[in-house]
Amino acid sequence: MQIRPLYDRVIVKRIEAQRTTASGIVIPDSAAEKPEQGEIVAVGSGRLLQDGTLRPLQLEVGDRVLFGKYAGQTVKVDGEELLVMREEDVMGVLEADAGTTRKAA
Amino acid sequence: MQIRPLYDRVIVKRIEAQRTTASGIVIPDSAAEKPEQGEIVAVGSGRLLQDGTLRPLQLEVGDRVLFGKYAGQTVKVDGEELLVMREEDVMGVLEADAGTTRKAA
Amino acid sequence: MQIRPLYDRVIVKRIEAQRTTASGIVIPDSAAEKPEQGEIVAVGSGRLLQDGTLRPLQLEVGDRVLFGKYAGQTVKVDGEELLVMREEDVMGVLEADAGTTRKAA
Amino acid sequence: MQIRPLYDRVIVKRIEAQRTTASGIVIPDSAAEKPEQGEIVAVGSGRLLQDGTLRPLQLEVGDRVLFGKYAGQTVKVDGEELLVMREEDVMGVLEADAGTTRKAA
Amino acid sequence: MQIRPLYDRVIVKRIEAQRTTASGIVIPDSAAEKPEQGEIVAVGSGRLLQDGTLRPLQLEVGDRVLFGKYAGQTVKVDGEELLVMREEDVMGVLEADAGTTRKAA
Amino acid sequence: MQIRPLYDRVIVKRIEAQRTTASGIVIPDSAAEKPEQGEIVAVGSGRLLQDGTLRPLQLEVGDRVLFGKYAGQTVKVDGEELLVMREEDVMGVLEADAGTTRKAA
Amino acid sequence: MQIRPLYDRVIVKRIEAQRTTASGIVIPDSAAEKPEQGEIVAVGSGRLLQDGTLRPLQLEVGDRVLFGKYAGQTVKVDGEELLVMREEDVMGVLEADAGTTRKAA
Repeated sequence: MQIRPLYDRVIVKRIEAQRTTASGIVIPDSAAEKPEQGEIVAVGSGRLLQDGTLRPLQLEVGDRVLFGKYAGQTVKVDGEELLVMREEDVMGVLEADAGTTRKAA
Repeated sequence: MQIRPLYDRVIVKRIEAQRTTASGIVIPDSAAEKPEQGEIVAVGSGRLLQDGTLRPLQLEVGDRVLFGKYAGQTVKVDGEELLVMREEDVMGVLEADAGTTRKAA
Repeated sequence: MQIRPLYDRVIVKRIEAQRTTASGIVIPDSAAEKPEQGEIVAVGSGRLLQDGTLRPLQLEVGDRVLFGKYAGQTVKVDGEELLVMREEDVMGVLEADAGTTRKAA
Repeated sequence: MQIRPLYDRVIVKRIEAQRTTASGIVIPDSAAEKPEQGEIVAVGSGRLLQDGTLRPLQLEVGDRVLFGKYAGQTVKVDGEELLVMREEDVMGVLEADAGTTRKAA
Repeated sequence: MQIRPLYDRVIVKRIEAQRTTASGIVIPDSAAEKPEQGEIVAVGSGRLLQDGTLRPLQLEVGDRVLFGKYAGQTVKVDGEELLVMREEDVMGVLEADAGTTRKAA
Repeated sequence: MQIRPLYDRVIVKRIEAQRTTASGIVIPDSAAEKPEQGEIVAVGSGRLLQDGTLRPLQLEVGDRVLFGKYAGQTVKVDGEELLVMREEDVMGVLEADAGTTRKAA
Repeated sequence: MQIRPLYDRVIVKRIEAQRTTASGIVIPDSAAEKPEQGEIVAVGSGRLLQDGTLRPLQLEVGDRVLFGKYAGQTVKVDGEELLVMREEDVMGVLEADAGTTRKAA
């Protein structure tokens, strides 16, 4: 089962960071602060403009994104926890190359 | 009797999840947290744009949708409890196939 | 005396549901929760669009409508209690036939 | 001295209802709840649209109107108490004939 | 020294009403409620429309206006107390002739 | 070092009024209420309109302006205290000549 | 790893001012008030206009900017603390030359 988001919403899967203390003890995720990074797993059909047309989103499936701690709403699909948020709530995309190139969209 | 929603409103029928404990005892619905899934049973004539035209909604009758716990207003028609909400309040559509295909609308 | 509403306002006459207990005692209206159904008795000349034109309302005189418990303002005309509300505040129209047909407007 | 309202404002003169108790005692106005009916005595030059043009108001001098208890601001001109409010704050016009005819404007 | 207001702001000089008690004692202004009438002494270059053009104001220098008790901000220029407010905050213009004529602007 | 403001922001340098008591004692500025006058030292490139064009500001470098006591944000550049505010927050321009002439912009 | 901001967001790296007391003791940064200056390290693809087009930002990579103490959200990338904010939140650009020249954009 998958979620198809509407308009300018995206579905984000949190990336759970492995946390290890200096002494090598692994802290299970529930004891650590939830990360604010995730991967886009679905994007809506576009932002609705005032003239009624849809503008495709800038985000794409597979993008690794940063978002605020309280962004989006949590939903559970087939036991998996996902976040539904607006593209607006995504602060940026993490990239391996230099981030200063302007991406036309 | 049926409700015809106006403009960008939709009528949603909650999908009541059967809840069974590990020992096999069925928890009646009133004791369980209300689900946040539903089925679209009617859609409005469209979102009113600034130029006065109506834009057909993306949701269709039969769509299985996710929505927030406090979305919409409850109404009772012929003894049946329904929700009236704006298309805006629907977070996404649950689908069997991959949710990453962009649906043109 | 009648009220002619302005722009996108409509006049609604509540439909008072007869309430009878299991033992047959009729509960007078003042002791029962006010119903949230009504009949449209007058509609405004239209919604004012940004370009100054009026868009005719979707509601028509005679429509049986659902609305929120706190929608509108109560006025008394010739001893009769009526509600003045915006078309926006009406959640839907009750119809005998299937409510899934889209009404063009 | 008269007030010429600007843009979409109108000047309303309250209609003071004569109040008489069952025993025939006239209750002077200050002891009675202020009525929410009035007569339009002046209308502004029109609502300012986004493109800078003025759209004539629907209300006309002489209209008998209904308005909310806290609508408008009270001003005194030549000892007479008047209300200045926006056309938006007027809920409807009281008419002797059927109120369901749509008035083109 | 004079103030030139920007855009849709106007400069208003309060009209101090002479107050005399029944016994003929003149109440100096500081002991009396400040009047809500004034004279327009300067007007801005116009309201900025969405397309970037300026729409000349309806108010003109010399107009005697009514405004709310808390409208505008008080400024002192050369010892004289003036009010800076938006045209929007002016409720109407006091005129000797009938106020029902619509002024084209 | 100078600040170049963005869009519709302006940089204002407060004009510190010399304050002298009746007996001739000069009150240093920190003991006196801060004045609400200033001089424009830099203006932004223009107000961003909805269509994406920039509209040049009405304020110019050198203008002596009035502004509200809590307008803008204080910044320190090279030890000098300046205010950054939006053109919107400036109430008017102080001029030696009559302020009633409309300046086209 | 770099952050590519979306739309009108920019990535800012705070400029940590070296603080030395009169007696020459260096105050480490954690004990000093955080500075409100920074350098733009990445800019979004543009501000989304109502017609769906993107307007390039005025800020450029390398610009030294002023911003409010509570502007933006802090993110950590590769151990480095950065700020994500909207171009709107940037008050101005610090420049060595005179700041009164209008930059066309």
